[in-house]
Amino acid sequence: MAFTDGLLFRQLFESESCTYTYLLADTDNKEAVLIDPVLETLDRDLKIIKELGLQLKVAVNTHCHADHITSTGRMKTKLFGLKSAISKHSGAAADIHLVEGDEIKFGRHSLKVKETPGHTDGCITLVTGDQRMAFTGDALLIRGCGRTDFQQGSSERLYSSIHKQIFTLPDHCLVYPAHDYLGQTVSTVGEERKFNPRLTKSLEEFVQIMKNLNLPKPKKIDISVPANLVCGLHEI
Amino acid sequence: MAFTDGLLFRQLFESESCTYTYLLADTDNKEAVLIDPVLETLDRDLKIIKELGLQLKVAVNTHCHADHITSTGRMKTKLFGLKSAISKHSGAAADIHLVEGDEIKFGRHSLKVKETPGHTDGCITLVTGDQRMAFTGDALLIRGCGRTDFQQGSSERLYSSIHKQIFTLPDHCLVYPAHDYLGQTVSTVGEERKFNPRLTKSLEEFVQIMKNLNLPKPKKIDISVPANLVCGLHEI
Repeated sequence: MAFTDGLLFRQLFESESCTYTYLLADTDNKEAVLIDPVLETLDRDLKIIKELGLQLKVAVNTHCHADHITSTGRMKTKLFGLKSAISKHSGAAADIHLVEGDEIKFGRHSLKVKETPGHTDGCITLVTGDQRMAFTGDALLIRGCGRTDFQQGSSERLYSSIHKQIFTLPDHCLVYPAHDYLGQTVSTVGEERKFNPRLTKSLEEFVQIMKNLNLPKPKKIDISVPANLVCGLHEI
Repeated sequence: MAFTDGLLFRQLFESESCTYTYLLADTDNKEAVLIDPVLETLDRDLKIIKELGLQLKVAVNTHCHADHITSTGRMKTKLFGLKSAISKHSGAAADIHLVEGDEIKFGRHSLKVKETPGHTDGCITLVTGDQRMAFTGDALLIRGCGRTDFQQGSSERLYSSIHKQIFTLPDHCLVYPAHDYLGQTVSTVGEERKFNPRLTKSLEEFVQIMKNLNLPKPKKIDISVPANLVCGLHEI
């Protein structure tokens, strides 16, 4: 997958928060986009970008994360011309505020913004122009979904977002989430439509499931959310 | 990458030993091969195989692992008709003993065996028929390589194996290793030829680097190696 149809693709993992960072680039003109980079793996990501000779144009967050701090702010101090991006509805600072239908272009390729709120108000899913890959953030996870019990969470909105914005993509579209806790790296829209234990339920059942998850509060939420509202540059 | 050219592909991760397990299948007739499955993630792997409706023909180990126990033996008790496979030179029990040039066929696809000893005597690299993907086990890792200080390890043999058997593959060939400890999921032959900090050195320098790694003994070696000599069925 790393080089197909002129697209370079790398999935990267940060083990503390189980976050996936995605690097996409045009193999010809080397323009690149980074999705959900994590502060702890900034040096690793910068090294790969440098070795591959990429010109990182945009570092985009799929939402204002509660479990880890983004590296977009720091990365901007290292890479000339880099712009940060996040949903307009996230309330977070960034160079680019994205809304439904916006496109992030890199070389011949692009990522289209689909608003998928519910985990937070400002969650987006990024879909490649050929609809072969969808980066679903914390909206749709592999056989799961993002929690809805803090940060403007709404089970009803999440259910509607996934069904209307993600499950309407082609069955073969690859689903790349922001996290996985079981070592799974990818799924497809068809698989999730068929096997997701939450999203295959009715709205009423889904709301009940989400109400009874009883998850602990994310360890880093009190640091991460304020930090991520300013691209991770909270200490400056 | 999950579905391209009739190939279903899944990379799976086991976090304790940082092992990658790979599932490949023909999307038409559903015949499948599993590479380096881990005992701890047996249930996860069986669930995916079942959900995707695959018929697992062969579970193959790239070598006799020292850091984790294989699930091939247990998996055979769950999946009718499954055969285990490993290099003839590993000294381990299995249904199929592989040698240079052998092919593991599944539907329209195949994996060709290349012997790449050095980390152990019985290390193999599995290459897809179109040379687009190479599963390098513990021979070549991303920006690294397997250690050579136990289990018949030989730096000279490893250096020769990687240069003659892996670095002669096309530059764009994707490198999928058995492990990564930094959250990297894939590389390419071209990249490793250019950036691997060990393999870009002369043989003499490589031998010195490997001699001075001073790595701790793998925690599970005294359990894993005897267990993996009998497909992980050491307790039966």
